Amino acid sequence: MAPTITAFESSPDRGRGQARDMRLRWALEEVGQPYDVRLVSFAAMKQPAHLALHPFGQIPTYEDRDLALFESGAIVLHLAERHDGLLPADASARARAIAWMFAALNTLEPPIVELGMAMLFERDRSWYAERLPMLQDRVRVRLGELSRRLGGADWLDGAFSAGDLMMVTVLRRLSASGLLDEYPDLAAYVARGEARPAFKRAFAAQLAVFRAASPH
Amino acid sequence: MAPTITAFESSPDRGRGQARDMRLRWALEEVGQPYDVRLVSFAAMKQPAHLALHPFGQIPTYEDRDLALFESGAIVLHLAERHDGLLPADASARARAIAWMFAALNTLEPPIVELGMAMLFERDRSWYAERLPMLQDRVRVRLGELSRRLGGADWLDGAFSAGDLMMVTVLRRLSASGLLDEYPDLAAYVARGEARPAFKRAFAAQLAVFRAASPH
Repeated sequence: MAPTITAFESSPDRGRGQARDMRLRWALEEVGQPYDVRLVSFAAMKQPAHLALHPFGQIPTYEDRDLALFESGAIVLHLAERHDGLLPADASARARAIAWMFAALNTLEPPIVELGMAMLFERDRSWYAERLPMLQDRVRVRLGELSRRLGGADWLDGAFSAGDLMMVTVLRRLSASGLLDEYPDLAAYVARGEARPAFKRAFAAQLAVFRAASPH
Repeated sequence: MAPTITAFESSPDRGRGQARDMRLRWALEEVGQPYDVRLVSFAAMKQPAHLALHPFGQIPTYEDRDLALFESGAIVLHLAERHDGLLPADASARARAIAWMFAALNTLEPPIVELGMAMLFERDRSWYAERLPMLQDRVRVRLGELSRRLGGADWLDGAFSAGDLMMVTVLRRLSASGLLDEYPDLAAYVARGEARPAFKRAFAAQLAVFRAASPH
């Protein structure tokens, strides 16, 4: 039986693939594993049945026989450890790829999410004009450091890995901000990720969910 | 040769053990591994030698022979995979413990750091009085969910694991906010972590660094 993941019944990003189920879909496509999807409404996410799977009432979750997991980083790592294609064989290179997963989630994503939340929810507040550049600059600092480390390479540490998968999905969340355009090498890095056949299959799958829910 | 970690030369929290080197010290003590510490100044953290170790110019880093790692989550996971004491033997329980590490770093820590940063840097801004309760409520939502899941147990998923280690260090960053007092079960959970002999040894070691740098 194929594992089951959960995704938003109604995509808040209108099919742009910025929700965290995209990370699992992409990882599953990279390692060639079929999967089932259960769509969850915002109301159902906060009900006991879903909270038993995800203590914080979010998507995605992952169920495979008796194992239930939450947190996209943990699920991608779980997949990467069990299938070839997302982590290098060499032990040190493997540890470094995992470090990039954590960097994407704990160093890059927090200021990026903070900027996104302000752009969504604080646009009408008195402080927005003053806070926005502050939040943008926090993201720019990280993008500048990431760009320096990438140094013109295709991927963060040799071959494509789960670290790149995670970093590309985090950087894609910047699309509404325009900030990625200031770093052409990072924009090209994201485009390289998006050009992978596994990404394209994953993207099409989540887009199909949005289109089915919004036929007009 | 023992591995070497980096830590702040001058502790910004005055020895309260809230910097991220504490996570490594605690993990190393839990698994009984000796380690060396190299102290780094704020200026040195942004110099090429340190940036080669840590692309984002932060602490901690971890060096063990030819392996160099950054990101506290990745380093604790690396230690937990190589030594007994921080991850259960059962494969599913192990995956769940790792999920709690990611939850601590990607779901709990971002709103907690955001609140801490506002309390440090936005106290004199016009919007502080209006934004503070908003940030506090974001943290409260997560604490409430965490408390419900903990459900009176000692640890998040059976025996103490790297997931608890990470979660306790993240919750400790709330000390200045007073929010943990609203959740006595979570305060007791943190106290259980702090009562572990390995935590105490790690805490004493980082406090000794602060005292040596600030003799008066």
